[in-house]
Amino acid sequence: MSRLGIDDERIASAARRVMARCDELAKVSAKPDAIERVYLSREHAHANRLVAAWMRETGMSTWQDAAGNQIGRIRIGPGSAEPDDAPALILGSHLDTVSDGGRYDGMLGVLMAIEVVRLLAAPGAATLPFAIEVIAFWDEEGTRFGKALLGSSAVAGTWQDDWWSLTDAEGTTLREAFVDFGLDPAQVGDAARRPGEIVGYLEAHIEQGPQLDRSREALAVVSSIAGARRFELVVEGEARHAGGTPYDARRDALLGAGEAALAVERVCRAQHHIIGTVGRFEAFPGGINVVPGEVRFTLDLRGELDPARDEVWERLACEFDAIAGRRGLRWSAREIHDAAAVRCAPLLQDVVGAGIQAATGARTDPIRLFSPAGHDGMAMSAIADVGMLFLRNADGISHHPAESVQRGDVARGIRALAESVLHLAAEPVRVGGRR
Amino acid sequence: MSRLGIDDERIASAARRVMARCDELAKVSAKPDAIERVYLSREHAHANRLVAAWMRETGMSTWQDAAGNQIGRIRIGPGSAEPDDAPALILGSHLDTVSDGGRYDGMLGVLMAIEVVRLLAAPGAATLPFAIEVIAFWDEEGTRFGKALLGSSAVAGTWQDDWWSLTDAEGTTLREAFVDFGLDPAQVGDAARRPGEIVGYLEAHIEQGPQLDRSREALAVVSSIAGARRFELVVEGEARHAGGTPYDARRDALLGAGEAALAVERVCRAQHHIIGTVGRFEAFPGGINVVPGEVRFTLDLRGELDPARDEVWERLACEFDAIAGRRGLRWSAREIHDAAAVRCAPLLQDVVGAGIQAATGARTDPIRLFSPAGHDGMAMSAIADVGMLFLRNADGISHHPAESVQRGDVARGIRALAESVLHLAAEPVRVGGRR
Repeated sequence: MSRLGIDDERIASAARRVMARCDELAKVSAKPDAIERVYLSREHAHANRLVAAWMRETGMSTWQDAAGNQIGRIRIGPGSAEPDDAPALILGSHLDTVSDGGRYDGMLGVLMAIEVVRLLAAPGAATLPFAIEVIAFWDEEGTRFGKALLGSSAVAGTWQDDWWSLTDAEGTTLREAFVDFGLDPAQVGDAARRPGEIVGYLEAHIEQGPQLDRSREALAVVSSIAGARRFELVVEGEARHAGGTPYDARRDALLGAGEAALAVERVCRAQHHIIGTVGRFEAFPGGINVVPGEVRFTLDLRGELDPARDEVWERLACEFDAIAGRRGLRWSAREIHDAAAVRCAPLLQDVVGAGIQAATGARTDPIRLFSPAGHDGMAMSAIADVGMLFLRNADGISHHPAESVQRGDVARGIRALAESVLHLAAEPVRVGGRR
Repeated sequence: MSRLGIDDERIASAARRVMARCDELAKVSAKPDAIERVYLSREHAHANRLVAAWMRETGMSTWQDAAGNQIGRIRIGPGSAEPDDAPALILGSHLDTVSDGGRYDGMLGVLMAIEVVRLLAAPGAATLPFAIEVIAFWDEEGTRFGKALLGSSAVAGTWQDDWWSLTDAEGTTLREAFVDFGLDPAQVGDAARRPGEIVGYLEAHIEQGPQLDRSREALAVVSSIAGARRFELVVEGEARHAGGTPYDARRDALLGAGEAALAVERVCRAQHHIIGTVGRFEAFPGGINVVPGEVRFTLDLRGELDPARDEVWERLACEFDAIAGRRGLRWSAREIHDAAAVRCAPLLQDVVGAGIQAATGARTDPIRLFSPAGHDGMAMSAIADVGMLFLRNADGISHHPAESVQRGDVARGIRALAESVLHLAAEPVRVGGRR
């Protein structure tokens, strides 16, 4: 059921504007021939200025919060000029990028949210029982300081004091970068929002996977954001002369670690909705004529459901034990990251689903996907119900300059997101998160 | 049959001196807690000064040749004061080390040769129809410039002009390092010796493998020095987001390269006397949450016989094709080293065997081993017959701080090498190499 009385031409115009602004933001980069926009950089300030101006165009009041996130807020409908202490539905995504990234991951969701505000704030288009805020988060990717979800953690009030000493590749601490950017580390708590101020959090994002593309569908409801566990592993054997050491006297760490990486693939493939990746992998000492005595590698393990993911880790540990036993190796693992999966709130899954049906005219339930990739919603779930809308991206290529999205899908996504807001507005207002 | 009338106490004393001097040389290191002594370094000059002094103690005249090798020469017996243009039997090994290496690989053979000279030059001990030269070579391992057998290639006259532009880890070229060390690149040809000046080349070396230790034997005759082929390989797939890319959409270079490394082990183990080692191995781009798009690794392939080794390479290339085809990867290889196997001269194998029997009192033929490790004899074979004596080292551990040799084995080795020289002296003098 469509609740939005707006013609296709205005939606198409909004989508064209989003595509053009993604191109414009892509130019705000630390590198001339690639996109790199990291937290607390000159490009951060530049992108916030652009986005704040675009927010104000739609009638929003804007401010940069104590963690550098760019926020716009608006009341829509009669009474919107009154003192504004209404709880807000937050629409958001992020403006930072990975190194050599694409032009849609994050930015698309921010720019779509601004267009949704423009459509709903048009005279007579809607009256909303809650305020709308658009938040452009920094730093979702963790590119600069190795720690992801910084800005959304500040908003969620879960900022950790030990992050201040994180350093970037130049040795600058997060604390120093804050000051250099003009922010006051002592005030970061001011960015935190209380659950009572928030109706919910809705984010549109490219899928970063090929499921929609393969299904020839434009949009999906996100069922959950997978929690990742990340490990640094070491396999130790014995570095020996490559010529003089017969095979039965070798304790070759590389061959053991190679078997371990293949076991990750085999075990995870056999499961449903579990993905394990060995991304970093290096043998030491690294001499051409030396049997490797040590391999250091990483494991990133994600799953729709935490218990299934944790069972796979136990299973892998058994496999690693067996490999090490057979080859006379030792192995050890240090867990460096552990995030629980975040289930999208049933009500927000329903309104996003209704929004997609209204936008696409489909009579059947829309596709539901879990997100193996992390999103700001993981942090926001501490204080708000979370809902997400996925847009098809070609072949699922993301974190790469070839990342793409179709303008027609963006139009469908804008309409779906606007319809979702209107469907939520028709529900009794429920405030706060994680009940 | 023993030809050496020297009592065990003097041999034992010589072995103690060799052990103490190995310890003394171990202190000549670029690293405080590890042994690293590379070509044309401050430690190179320091070690040459020490070894030259030890050579002169035994009556040798000494010089450093145009490639930085340290040489000592002596005539033994009546007439030794006459003008000396006699062909020489060369005893040698090397003084350079791998990074974080042991204290015997190379040095032991140089110091044993000096003791053999001391024993044979004692009044009345021997009269030799040839001169003896002891050569302490640099750089056998190739640690600094990635190219092995530099010093012995200079002596063999096979120095290549394109080596001058080889660089070390700091970017210093071999040419610059020559000049910094006080050598003249234009004069390197002066280090070259003519076959007519040489009776043969004999080298004592630790086995760098466990065969003698497992056989509970102290010494072996070397039958051949295996030729190595070395390759740099690249496996290319596609770097993708670790979360969003399902297994059937991945072209994971790490998993393909891991299978390739395991194929090297499987194929070589099934062969006799072929050893393949993947020593260097690294995945790129190396992000924890990125599917590896590229792996660079090396392959070192050795065999007693070249044709069998080359067949294994063809077989491996087929395996790599199959892996790449299955996983949607590309692979390529660049051959960076190709050395033919060198067969030790039958006469020198015989005199070394006779030396071992005289030293150990064994009535049966001594063990004959091929050397999977490279040695200076590979280069020297261009101008001289080559013979080698292997000494047991515990568990075959070499290129490692735990590398060890027993003093008793060193005593047996010194006696065997001295006896070998006397047995060769009893043969008609044959000059030159590779007839």
